[in-house]
Amino acid sequence: MSPREDTVLSTMQDVPLLISRILTHGSTVHGTSRVTTWTGEGEPHRRTFAEIGARAAQLAHALRADLGVGDDERIGTLAWNNAEHVEAYFAIPSMGAILHTLNLRLPPEQLAWIVNHAADRVVIANGSLLPLLAPLLPHLKTVEHVVVTGPGDRSLLDGATAQVHEYEDLIAGKPTTYDWPELDERSAAAMCYTSGTTGEPKGVVYSHRSIYLHSMQVNMAQSMGLTDQDTSLVVVPQFHVNAWGLPHATFMTGVNMLMPDRFLQPAPLAEMIESERPTHAAAVPTIWQGLLAELTARPRDVASLTQVTIGGSACPPSLMEAFDRLGMRVCHAWGMTETSPLGTVARPPAQAVGTEAEFAYRLTQGRFPAGVEARLTGPDGERLPWDGESAGELEVRGPWIAGAYYNGPAADPIRPADKFSEDNWLKTGDVGTISPDGYLTLTDRAKDVIKSGGEWISSVELENALMAHPDVTEAAVVAVPDEKWGERPLATVVLREGATADFAALRAFLGGDGGIAKWQLPERWAVIEAVPKTSVGKFDKKVLRRRYADGELEVTRL
Amino acid sequence: MSPREDTVLSTMQDVPLLISRILTHGSTVHGTSRVTTWTGEGEPHRRTFAEIGARAAQLAHALRADLGVGDDERIGTLAWNNAEHVEAYFAIPSMGAILHTLNLRLPPEQLAWIVNHAADRVVIANGSLLPLLAPLLPHLKTVEHVVVTGPGDRSLLDGATAQVHEYEDLIAGKPTTYDWPELDERSAAAMCYTSGTTGEPKGVVYSHRSIYLHSMQVNMAQSMGLTDQDTSLVVVPQFHVNAWGLPHATFMTGVNMLMPDRFLQPAPLAEMIESERPTHAAAVPTIWQGLLAELTARPRDVASLTQVTIGGSACPPSLMEAFDRLGMRVCHAWGMTETSPLGTVARPPAQAVGTEAEFAYRLTQGRFPAGVEARLTGPDGERLPWDGESAGELEVRGPWIAGAYYNGPAADPIRPADKFSEDNWLKTGDVGTISPDGYLTLTDRAKDVIKSGGEWISSVELENALMAHPDVTEAAVVAVPDEKWGERPLATVVLREGATADFAALRAFLGGDGGIAKWQLPERWAVIEAVPKTSVGKFDKKVLRRRYADGELEVTRL
Repeated sequence: MSPREDTVLSTMQDVPLLISRILTHGSTVHGTSRVTTWTGEGEPHRRTFAEIGARAAQLAHALRADLGVGDDERIGTLAWNNAEHVEAYFAIPSMGAILHTLNLRLPPEQLAWIVNHAADRVVIANGSLLPLLAPLLPHLKTVEHVVVTGPGDRSLLDGATAQVHEYEDLIAGKPTTYDWPELDERSAAAMCYTSGTTGEPKGVVYSHRSIYLHSMQVNMAQSMGLTDQDTSLVVVPQFHVNAWGLPHATFMTGVNMLMPDRFLQPAPLAEMIESERPTHAAAVPTIWQGLLAELTARPRDVASLTQVTIGGSACPPSLMEAFDRLGMRVCHAWGMTETSPLGTVARPPAQAVGTEAEFAYRLTQGRFPAGVEARLTGPDGERLPWDGESAGELEVRGPWIAGAYYNGPAADPIRPADKFSEDNWLKTGDVGTISPDGYLTLTDRAKDVIKSGGEWISSVELENALMAHPDVTEAAVVAVPDEKWGERPLATVVLREGATADFAALRAFLGGDGGIAKWQLPERWAVIEAVPKTSVGKFDKKVLRRRYADGELEVTRL
Repeated sequence: MSPREDTVLSTMQDVPLLISRILTHGSTVHGTSRVTTWTGEGEPHRRTFAEIGARAAQLAHALRADLGVGDDERIGTLAWNNAEHVEAYFAIPSMGAILHTLNLRLPPEQLAWIVNHAADRVVIANGSLLPLLAPLLPHLKTVEHVVVTGPGDRSLLDGATAQVHEYEDLIAGKPTTYDWPELDERSAAAMCYTSGTTGEPKGVVYSHRSIYLHSMQVNMAQSMGLTDQDTSLVVVPQFHVNAWGLPHATFMTGVNMLMPDRFLQPAPLAEMIESERPTHAAAVPTIWQGLLAELTARPRDVASLTQVTIGGSACPPSLMEAFDRLGMRVCHAWGMTETSPLGTVARPPAQAVGTEAEFAYRLTQGRFPAGVEARLTGPDGERLPWDGESAGELEVRGPWIAGAYYNGPAADPIRPADKFSEDNWLKTGDVGTISPDGYLTLTDRAKDVIKSGGEWISSVELENALMAHPDVTEAAVVAVPDEKWGERPLATVVLREGATADFAALRAFLGGDGGIAKWQLPERWAVIEAVPKTSVGKFDKKVLRRRYADGELEVTRL
């Protein structure tokens, strides 16, 4: 609206939403809350929020005064979840610089590409990660300083051209308070690169505003809903979408953090749950699978842990049931780097609680919070209804959702058309349905879905149905060109040892017990030795499509 | 920061925080949640959030098309808590106009002053309130339309110069969706006048941003923390600081609302708790005192109600204990019209839970959330420490805190120096202490505190100590001028029937069992018949100070 004759101005204060506010609040009002870091032997390391606040101020002074870090400069962190990483989380954005968390699981050449693309000038690294960092350093063109925290062999950095600093030496004696600048809440605070399996990694730059609002959402009772009575075991890495926003959210309400550092194996995780008694934990399903096996083999007292947030990929129903039996209530959530990540949380609606429908609701990706608008777009760009039936690509919009990717300092962000709609909604690349009451069920990735005669066929649905057949150990379904229908599904299966290929029987199985509609049943079939996988273990369907195009597969047509 | 060569832009979407987003979200994702309005006889009236959403759209169309309401125009509501009032709460700000809730408890002349000051063009009124509105109407200079909802004698409006409309007729047949405008989140959304006992009422204008952020805070687990599993009995009136933000907050997460309409007496409240089974309720202490007496006289099944938010004035310890015994956990909160109102919530810290200290924490005003910065200012303008000892005037800052008062359309807001500091913090007028862990304890009003030799003496503390003496039924302590100390306390007491005035004994009692420091003990004493009170039942100390100044009191000097 343009100002008019009778415009009424709000009389509210104009106070920006800044990470420094979360820091100051957490380290005063919740000053006695603690970050506990696992050390693998002996007592864990404990630091209060008040101490974290004081040390974050010292770190900011050191970065500014000793290392000359200016506004908007990128500071990389190559670190596990620990107290020093939390200090960096708050000090760097609060002083006006940008926290750039580096994913230590990436192939080294991709990591180097990302550091160079972000033009990080400083890297704060855990000593235990120097074996990864040292050989990379010569390829990092912009890194002038390396700051090392915790145990680890410093001699690995001998001969580095970057200056090497001890974290503790650097911050020692610095003032324990800092006059945090009153930044624009829309200014850049942190960045994280997506590790897409195709194309170059893409940088997402979070703002103070987006992180602050996301933290409030995480703390809402309908989301994670933690309070200062809780201790959260933050297994999801701090280098992975801000550890799902937990360090910021916990500081906002005084939730204690239990940080596993590099001890992410099932045995130490079980041990820290038993001895530190967290009430909440957050991690991807793989971690929980391992923990479950450990707890089955060697039972522990894990009664404190009553709430478990699972995201990253879908939680298998069997895993959810197993955790329920242990008294750990699983709450499913969906998100991605571009959504900060909180997109949905699967708390069942009031009317389903205590009924048979409850478990089905918990297996969905969940419900959108008020801050996330959602819509489904069909094969021809049409809007689809929230009827729980119509499958389309999920598009989202909101104050903590990306609307572009980073394109280098002083450059306008880029908005690739396959990632952002014309009206600037994020195209998630996920295909699914939304129920009338707002529950999202993802069925496929948009790049894997089969577009057959203007309708979509879910490759994942076909694969799951195939893998339910006793003769099939693995199955991958990909779209292949078809003259009549545009695309049709090609079913590739890995057979159980000793089984023989009977594609007609498999096809009949799909249409019968598999519950697949007739028009969706594959005509093209092939046996493969193994499903090709990406470096992170996902099905690599690109490879299968190429093999098909190159005539490398022996295809039977029914 | 000014843009620099290497400025990094956030890649987050720029999505405004708007009330229309809360409405759209609540009426879709939480479309089956309900607003239940008590009718006094027979079935209560029930409406789903989806229906509220549709009717809010109809109301907006009616206001725009039929009544010509434009952007920023003020629409007054003279209404109890009910479904139609909720519809107005969402329709009016969402369409770009301003919701102006009218306090029906105010003296009629003050109400007329406020409507004229805000220049309301439309008033939406409950039929049951027409006996209040009708005689006012001739004095309301800007009101062109009156829209009447619910039962009530319309003939009271016969002869009115304003056009009279039936709410249901007006919205009937209008489209049930509305293309809500994408407003600036800082634009005005709602206004509420303070009913200060001194001076003219002052208008506070909330923005979409402030209401949205406040709603998120209310929903945080550490604040009220409600979810769609809850039903909230909203006793605090919608004309009183947006019913503490509950209509917005509940719509944001699908919390069911139970609205008492005009049935605020103890008996119907007890009846609606028993039959509708709310899990949460919010009201001022007076309401709870009455309800407690009712439940004691006529026990009911109120087991559903486990969480009770009390604010508005301090909750007496005896009341808190009595509710605890009934299984209703009282949570104390502090706020004011200028703070939206959530300023503090008294949830005890983790380390106090289950200890003797817990109850003491619950009796404080509570702890500040991250969105509210607080500081204490002493008698000479100095900042005081958070030591739980130093008493100063509380000043607050934050995105849902007022930084000015309304000064008429197209006029810059006003910032009286006694209400706002030079750096634009709100001076609350409340005096108290803050503990190192951020708990606020209010001890007095700034205008009532006695400034004696550069130190503050709490009038409330002296009054409470005096009223603990068996001979004293009421006591009021006011500041009077003193040549040596600037100000000294004057103690005025109402004696128990048959008691005789022994001021020396009372003074000794204060210094002994009363626990008052010697330098704070009053020298000046007087017996009065009754403590003068304001229209809302608070001690009117202005009157006592004037009587003292005029020599009307018979003062004994010890």
